[in-house]
Amino acid sequence: MTDGTLALDRAAQELLFTEARTANTFTDEPVTDAQVAAIYDLVKWGPTAMNTQPLRLTLVRSPQARERLVAHMNEGNKAKTAAAPLTIIVTADADFHEHLPVTFPHKPDAREVMAANPGRARMAHFNAAIQLGYLIVGIRAAGLAAGPMAGYDAEGIKKEFLADDNRQVVAVVNVGRPGPDAWFDRNPRLSYDQVVTEI
Amino acid sequence: MTDGTLALDRAAQELLFTEARTANTFTDEPVTDAQVAAIYDLVKWGPTAMNTQPLRLTLVRSPQARERLVAHMNEGNKAKTAAAPLTIIVTADADFHEHLPVTFPHKPDAREVMAANPGRARMAHFNAAIQLGYLIVGIRAAGLAAGPMAGYDAEGIKKEFLADDNRQVVAVVNVGRPGPDAWFDRNPRLSYDQVVTEI
Repeated sequence: MTDGTLALDRAAQELLFTEARTANTFTDEPVTDAQVAAIYDLVKWGPTAMNTQPLRLTLVRSPQARERLVAHMNEGNKAKTAAAPLTIIVTADADFHEHLPVTFPHKPDAREVMAANPGRARMAHFNAAIQLGYLIVGIRAAGLAAGPMAGYDAEGIKKEFLADDNRQVVAVVNVGRPGPDAWFDRNPRLSYDQVVTEI
Repeated sequence: MTDGTLALDRAAQELLFTEARTANTFTDEPVTDAQVAAIYDLVKWGPTAMNTQPLRLTLVRSPQARERLVAHMNEGNKAKTAAAPLTIIVTADADFHEHLPVTFPHKPDAREVMAANPGRARMAHFNAAIQLGYLIVGIRAAGLAAGPMAGYDAEGIKKEFLADDNRQVVAVVNVGRPGPDAWFDRNPRLSYDQVVTEI
């Protein structure tokens, strides 16, 4: 079913946005590598500036890795991070420019120019945030619930897992099937008139 | 049609990601307020940290406003910005906290705490970037092509249009039906193994 204005059918609108919710509990059902690969193969096509694609995903599933991660989460995020079948540490790779000869081939000096750009880490963070938006949509496209979190010790996570990489932690996202009482009440959204103006 | 792994049907996958492309030319067909409202009413449901929703959209359609905007675009972005039926100046509102009593009601002191937070503008920029990801998906959900651009004089645009607001320019996005020769060759994406690791 489509409505009059959007080309996307209503079932997809509901799956991705209007009925999708941030989950706070999860069932034990595993999230497979095949599911993660399908999500990535979908959302990788979302555009980034200069095709920089700085998003990197570190999967946490084993009890050992999970315990190390939970130690760096804020108190209110520990229980759900311990219980999710998959948690993704989402990072921005400030060394994205190493890939530019392949990913942005029509500008042969892009790697060299970017290597000297002091704004590179900021550019990585910004574009990885755009890709985080795609990723949350993609997790939902797989029929799974996402639980993105901002409450954690970013430096602690970096030292624990990513000490050798030139990456910043952008978000930590729980992924799985929603469990009992998975949802809080839905918070209100700003109205069109509060957000959109024309000049 | 669904494939085995994603819940989202293939037509929607193609519309939003796998066949969608960044457009560089547009037809004259107008983009209506009803279309923008339908896009916003879809993507407003995408989650942000603390439900901050800092994304703001300034619509540019009139010849007068367009001329003022084009003056601040980089050379390579002027022609397509002049030709698009709609251009959106996407901004991050660092005064998002004024809405928190309504948008985040279960934490009554959120506005006051955020008002004193020196990281507020950075938080606005980060969450607006996530919402920019949703917005690009939403423009495609309306059957339209998006042409997000990063090449412009952000301070110039701010002074020209947003001098009285506490906002940062996050992106400028052309919107419309793709015109002749709308696409460049599609640039390669990083492979799963380059992006995803498990610990």
